[in-house]
Amino acid sequence: MQGFHRRDVMGLGLAAAAAALTAGPARAQGAPDSVERWGLFEAALSGRAPGNPFDVTVTGVFTHGGRTIEAPGFYDGEGVWRVRFSPPEEGSWTWTIRSDLADLDGRSGALRATAPGQGNHGPVAVADTFHFAHADGTPYRPLGTTSYGWTHQGEAQRLRTLETLAASPFNKIRMLVFPNGSIPHEPLFPFEKSGPGEADWDFTRFNPAYFQRLDQQVAALMALGVQADVILFHPYDEDRWGFDRMPAEVDDRVIRHVVARLSAYRNVWWSMANEFDILEHKTDADWDRMFQLVRDVDPHGRLRSIHNWRRIYDNSHPWVTHASIQNGSAVVDDARAVIYRDVWYKPVVFDEVRYEGTMEDRWGNLTGQEMTRAFWEGLIAGTYVGHSETTPNSDAGFWLGIGGTLVGESPARLAFFKGVMDAAPAPGYEPIDKWWEQHLGGKLGRLYLRYFGEDAPTEWTVDLPRDELEGGERFEVDVIDTWAMTIDTLPGVFTMARKDRYFFHDPARLTVSLPGRPWMAVRVRRV
Amino acid sequence: MQGFHRRDVMGLGLAAAAAALTAGPARAQGAPDSVERWGLFEAALSGRAPGNPFDVTVTGVFTHGGRTIEAPGFYDGEGVWRVRFSPPEEGSWTWTIRSDLADLDGRSGALRATAPGQGNHGPVAVADTFHFAHADGTPYRPLGTTSYGWTHQGEAQRLRTLETLAASPFNKIRMLVFPNGSIPHEPLFPFEKSGPGEADWDFTRFNPAYFQRLDQQVAALMALGVQADVILFHPYDEDRWGFDRMPAEVDDRVIRHVVARLSAYRNVWWSMANEFDILEHKTDADWDRMFQLVRDVDPHGRLRSIHNWRRIYDNSHPWVTHASIQNGSAVVDDARAVIYRDVWYKPVVFDEVRYEGTMEDRWGNLTGQEMTRAFWEGLIAGTYVGHSETTPNSDAGFWLGIGGTLVGESPARLAFFKGVMDAAPAPGYEPIDKWWEQHLGGKLGRLYLRYFGEDAPTEWTVDLPRDELEGGERFEVDVIDTWAMTIDTLPGVFTMARKDRYFFHDPARLTVSLPGRPWMAVRVRRV
Repeated sequence: MQGFHRRDVMGLGLAAAAAALTAGPARAQGAPDSVERWGLFEAALSGRAPGNPFDVTVTGVFTHGGRTIEAPGFYDGEGVWRVRFSPPEEGSWTWTIRSDLADLDGRSGALRATAPGQGNHGPVAVADTFHFAHADGTPYRPLGTTSYGWTHQGEAQRLRTLETLAASPFNKIRMLVFPNGSIPHEPLFPFEKSGPGEADWDFTRFNPAYFQRLDQQVAALMALGVQADVILFHPYDEDRWGFDRMPAEVDDRVIRHVVARLSAYRNVWWSMANEFDILEHKTDADWDRMFQLVRDVDPHGRLRSIHNWRRIYDNSHPWVTHASIQNGSAVVDDARAVIYRDVWYKPVVFDEVRYEGTMEDRWGNLTGQEMTRAFWEGLIAGTYVGHSETTPNSDAGFWLGIGGTLVGESPARLAFFKGVMDAAPAPGYEPIDKWWEQHLGGKLGRLYLRYFGEDAPTEWTVDLPRDELEGGERFEVDVIDTWAMTIDTLPGVFTMARKDRYFFHDPARLTVSLPGRPWMAVRVRRV
Repeated sequence: MQGFHRRDVMGLGLAAAAAALTAGPARAQGAPDSVERWGLFEAALSGRAPGNPFDVTVTGVFTHGGRTIEAPGFYDGEGVWRVRFSPPEEGSWTWTIRSDLADLDGRSGALRATAPGQGNHGPVAVADTFHFAHADGTPYRPLGTTSYGWTHQGEAQRLRTLETLAASPFNKIRMLVFPNGSIPHEPLFPFEKSGPGEADWDFTRFNPAYFQRLDQQVAALMALGVQADVILFHPYDEDRWGFDRMPAEVDDRVIRHVVARLSAYRNVWWSMANEFDILEHKTDADWDRMFQLVRDVDPHGRLRSIHNWRRIYDNSHPWVTHASIQNGSAVVDDARAVIYRDVWYKPVVFDEVRYEGTMEDRWGNLTGQEMTRAFWEGLIAGTYVGHSETTPNSDAGFWLGIGGTLVGESPARLAFFKGVMDAAPAPGYEPIDKWWEQHLGGKLGRLYLRYFGEDAPTEWTVDLPRDELEGGERFEVDVIDTWAMTIDTLPGVFTMARKDRYFFHDPARLTVSLPGRPWMAVRVRRV
């Protein structure tokens, strides 16, 4: 389980996360006028609106040296508007409020952005075209999971989910803003009611308690060092509340509200939708508009993606930062997965590849071995893969729906996998000699990983593709059992010499022996 | 070899093609004022330019009813400018010349567009998102080949190439405008010389004889019913003539000249480049500009694509009509090939998938079986595949370079393949239950084709994915040997009933027997 000590190293962990989850409305960290770089500053502003307080416009203008950033505020109930801001640079910032409400307009203050504390590496952004890194340069390699409705559970269950995450290798979780019609949930909803019917909502008035719960969850994940992949819309309303078919102006209002609330949390990513192409009341033009709105109103420029069912969104649009793909077959074979990289020149995250579990549905019945395979195939393709599971963990459901505990066999193997993934030089694994059936990932001249999946070879010929080799390079070889979670380093080294026009090898040591079991890999490391 | 009688059916054929190839400069077909719909009308205009005649602007304005089309003209040497036009509608058209040369300006005439003759189905355009059709609605299913330099050979060799094409299943050929530095060629060049050096060109003066040869070739292919996929630029200059690094204004001048010459031939497709990403003197912005220029100056709107080496162009751009992909590994497995369809929602033509041949280079050493496999895998993915070969057919080279004869084993199998491809209902094969390892293409509820590649099963379970089935549908089953070119229709029918939540089958007849040989397929046809 090497390479998986993140929580301890960070000195944060579950206690802080639990505290965040049970706190009142989020507050500025530390003294009100002091916040870590990439931390969350909040100005809480009292006032009285003559009309609907949600209609009040409020913007915080933050200035540092020659730099000005405008952060949108939002109404949070009880006569309080909040403006949140995460300073991207250390030093003195001033802020001034612009508002159409005289009570708020012109209020101002200052804050000092201090050095980031332990475990605060800043937000994640795209790095080196296909990968991710924190703002301080630390590589971030997504190893995500999904629990759509953990966000909508009671407090005990949410704490259970955080405990599970803290003990897991997962560093990203996908989660729904709106409730899921087929998953148990607390009786809390995002809008005020307008009548007795299940779909009777006053779309002009949010329910602050609903969104404060979301604040707390994102804060708790931040304390754990887990990215919150916040799914703005989804098609699982089950004809109950109509949240999958709200008018465009309501969708836009939701976007403005959620972005104003959450964008200042450095661990937030935006997922426009889950299975967007099942949302039959929305067109591609709607998604284009909403994507651009998120981009335009988010002062922190968090990552933006959209997740598909059968039809892929045009991820070449400039407002898409990375591809979020559902396609389980793509990560059965690295030569499939790599095609998505090739066409978009953006990071590819396979955010749904079927789930480990025992469902009859074919999308929820992977074995632990198959779930684990997806990550290794994705890795050697230079892409990233996500997990979830559908085996019941209680009478109420399973991790994918309600969070709680993990009962599958893959998470332990994914912790092991993470050690191998993280041991690669920055930015991460790249496909090697793609399109030629090498099934190799790594870094040319430095690192080669061959993954065999369900094949069970008894030997492998150590032929390295020619690029970046000249002869004389020395390599050590690790034989990896990805299921038993063992790494056996072979004695001695392999010294490269030209074999033919395409390959280098060690003429004295042509092959490595393998045990004839499935789920093996070989790693060739430059000495 | 069923389904391959195109040349006879068309009543055109080699004699007409040979005549076109050896003709003088192209002329309007038939009487000068009468031309078939989708045929080629040409106005030849004499005059005397005070300066460089290539700098004269000349445009033909063609009018029919309320419709006006502006066709660019070009200087063709010997004091003659030509304006070519292919009428998209039958009936009376008038034309007027606009020019900055007074000799030409205001000249006018009329033409009558008559009903298309036998074999004239009009130009090819995208149909049903992923496929192609002629303007009269006839499906066009590409079965292409490549011979880069047949265009630059002596007349005898060019006639040999046409004879080969006439006897082949190929209905598209990719061909270079500019000569290839490593392939034998006639001593004819696209520009006038400006000095004694090999790269000394007067880029302001084209050599009409060079481009007239290209006219003849395109006309000859049109007579054969073969699409001419004209490759405007390529990286194989070998540091000789500098045609791979001309200034942008020269590239644009070339585009304007070639489009003015060739666009009126209904069989022309534009390929911006071969292996565009090896042309190191050009940027993506250059390709974007040139693509848009082709679109803007082509009055006939011919198909536009670009062909890659390792890096894929952003085919989501609206000026790209279809993807032209080099990736041999993609058509080893239909689940790879289909990904390109999914991301662009445009037709995908795998225009280079390695070649049948005997080269040491790995891109030129496919067996006939491997070359053939690519077409079947591409077919069930709902894509199209291209052929070529690198086995020497003479002391001078091979088909890929110089044309001439075909010596490989795949062309006969591709003729057989074409019969199966063309027997599908319009628009063509679609992938079935993609992303779930079915390896099926066809049309839901009507036609299912399972291809086994190098696997050699002894039976196949006839499970049909549930979509568009209700039970009671009756199917005949063909066992196809794609290499031996046989189709055995099994006696009786398979009557579908629900098997489980995902499949239908015939409970009385679960499987079909297969011979345990590779390269087999099974076709399930609705009765």
